[in-house]
Amino acid sequence: MATLGLIEYQDASREVRAIYDDIMATRKTDWINNFWKALANDPIALRRTWEDIKQIMAEGALDALTKELIYVAVSVSNQCGYCIASHTASARKKGMTDAMFHELMAVVGMANETNRLAAGYQIEIDNQFKV
Amino acid sequence: MATLGLIEYQDASREVRAIYDDIMATRKTDWINNFWKALANDPIALRRTWEDIKQIMAEGALDALTKELIYVAVSVSNQCGYCIASHTASARKKGMTDAMFHELMAVVGMANETNRLAAGYQIEIDNQFKV
Amino acid sequence: MATLGLIEYQDASREVRAIYDDIMATRKTDWINNFWKALANDPIALRRTWEDIKQIMAEGALDALTKELIYVAVSVSNQCGYCIASHTASARKKGMTDAMFHELMAVVGMANETNRLAAGYQIEIDNQFKV
Amino acid sequence: MATLGLIEYQDASREVRAIYDDIMATRKTDWINNFWKALANDPIALRRTWEDIKQIMAEGALDALTKELIYVAVSVSNQCGYCIASHTASARKKGMTDAMFHELMAVVGMANETNRLAAGYQIEIDNQFKV
Amino acid sequence: MATLGLIEYQDASREVRAIYDDIMATRKTDWINNFWKALANDPIALRRTWEDIKQIMAEGALDALTKELIYVAVSVSNQCGYCIASHTASARKKGMTDAMFHELMAVVGMANETNRLAAGYQIEIDNQFKV
Amino acid sequence: MATLGLIEYQDASREVRAIYDDIMATRKTDWINNFWKALANDPIALRRTWEDIKQIMAEGALDALTKELIYVAVSVSNQCGYCIASHTASARKKGMTDAMFHELMAVVGMANETNRLAAGYQIEIDNQFKV
Repeated sequence: MATLGLIEYQDASREVRAIYDDIMATRKTDWINNFWKALANDPIALRRTWEDIKQIMAEGALDALTKELIYVAVSVSNQCGYCIASHTASARKKGMTDAMFHELMAVVGMANETNRLAAGYQIEIDNQFKV
Repeated sequence: MATLGLIEYQDASREVRAIYDDIMATRKTDWINNFWKALANDPIALRRTWEDIKQIMAEGALDALTKELIYVAVSVSNQCGYCIASHTASARKKGMTDAMFHELMAVVGMANETNRLAAGYQIEIDNQFKV
Repeated sequence: MATLGLIEYQDASREVRAIYDDIMATRKTDWINNFWKALANDPIALRRTWEDIKQIMAEGALDALTKELIYVAVSVSNQCGYCIASHTASARKKGMTDAMFHELMAVVGMANETNRLAAGYQIEIDNQFKV
Repeated sequence: MATLGLIEYQDASREVRAIYDDIMATRKTDWINNFWKALANDPIALRRTWEDIKQIMAEGALDALTKELIYVAVSVSNQCGYCIASHTASARKKGMTDAMFHELMAVVGMANETNRLAAGYQIEIDNQFKV
Repeated sequence: MATLGLIEYQDASREVRAIYDDIMATRKTDWINNFWKALANDPIALRRTWEDIKQIMAEGALDALTKELIYVAVSVSNQCGYCIASHTASARKKGMTDAMFHELMAVVGMANETNRLAAGYQIEIDNQFKV
Repeated sequence: MATLGLIEYQDASREVRAIYDDIMATRKTDWINNFWKALANDPIALRRTWEDIKQIMAEGALDALTKELIYVAVSVSNQCGYCIASHTASARKKGMTDAMFHELMAVVGMANETNRLAAGYQIEIDNQFKV
């Protein structure tokens, strides 16, 4: 179980409920996932994290699906089970097809491989790559 | 310097040159970066890695720029200096604007943060996220 | 189940029991957690690891709670489920309040975020930070 | 050099200067380190990151030095060269003695070691550690 | 459950079955583990990954057991639960004794510790180690 | 430069010199690399780390070269520049040929790739792999 337990909507303070409401409205969903319910033990962290994510994950120069794919890529590289499950579900909801998922995994796997080859062979950065 | 040195085109075997030629043709460039020159010490690894990357990074369900952004995201999460330099350059060549780069970094940073919050709060996976 | 199983007190050799006794005496507890029972399959590693931890985690220039918080911070960054569970419990036993835990998580999350921003933006070290 | 270069104070927009001023005032220093100058290419990220750090690193249930030690611990675990240099300098400014640094490093090293022993021996979490 | 489910032999395409057959023949076993059944959702990735692994893990300058020990070492460092379980089983099948496992774990733990000491103390590379 | 500087032999205390002497005698070399000179700022850590490494890296069920290969594998996975340089040099001194190095890198790269595929596809552990 989560370290400090999960704060359900009916047990939440008015402040936390307002954030839950905003999460559900922004994401067009009618439930709150455990990440937020755990973080709600610290309402300041809940607010800060949600405001950050809302700002960062909004459509911008990159579309929402691309951002979600990047989120999955990082979570997979870091072996974060919860984040892989939640962001894979989120990416699918935003339109990730099976074919996209396969390619995402292939790129993530390859990047993790060549990251180590570059380090292991002690390769110096090409002048052309220096800004 | 790279552990086993770098194999320049003029010093390369016919086999290695053929791969160098394919890399330059595929990438529409006239030079080979150090990653390949270091790997060329092991021609079998050079061929395998190049064939894999060529297949994986080709346009598919995901476009080439998106794949490159994912590559940067993984390299940044792993703190691979060479890979960050080379794939950032590559992403820009494929059309990554400064605005895209900023958003990419913001998502990568956020994902790395919430990956640890999820782990640290020991949050269990929601049933809704289980397949 | 643990790869080589767990060595319970009643099944342990005299050598292993002596270490178990020292662990319980040092930690003022009456049970041994699975980490040690698994490591006990290799009595030399058990002794070495316990002697190291006893020396390192003792009160010194840093107090025992601060050391435990650092241990949690590392375990969370590394996504080690067992270590997060055991060291969070240990930190609470040593006096970590919920408020401290919230702040610990916030710092760990933030550090993981800015670690990637620093790497991704390829920021050179300021001369002022060089020793 | 940093991917998008560094924004010096004299070249900064009014918005960025205001944040630089707040950083210097909060930290009681008269210069801005490269991290912020690089991030200033994205003023929104600069503001968000600074506001987060200011909130998170302020004295609270944990004192400022303890937070800085935790920041170093994470940066070392992640092999972030820039962050190790900057936060080690910051920790010393906040009162970290050589003896504290030695103990910090010892705990970080030990935690990284036992994180892998726990994973490698596939140790299940004790019921006593489950919340 | 695996994100896209597992493809059992009886449900697999002819192409996938051929790879399953090759895996079982090469490994002298009569079953396919979940890794391949999950990857089979993307037959191209299945083929590429299997061909790579078959080439890389074959006896060569390093024997098959040594390669498997290295695989375990990486998986443990990365906290990959599935990979630790599968490659530990594989290493034992190839001859890893309990004594070897103990020493493997000790080296992996130690390397993870000193990796952080080297980074944390900001140690510059000795000229003697430069190629 | 190293955070607290490097302790040269001529400036070292008798206690530190004795450890330096033991390092050189054990390794059959006539110089001390920077790792130990940096750690010597904390003689207790120097002694503990050296005693641990001497015990762990000695010939046992695994030979000294195999242990060194594992050390390189971990250091590469962790992107530790100093450790890659020093342990690659050490492995070569102990007999690692170029062919062995190539295979080592190939296995490390592959393991890092499949570690992420296993996590990303959320693959459950086969019953056969459970102990």
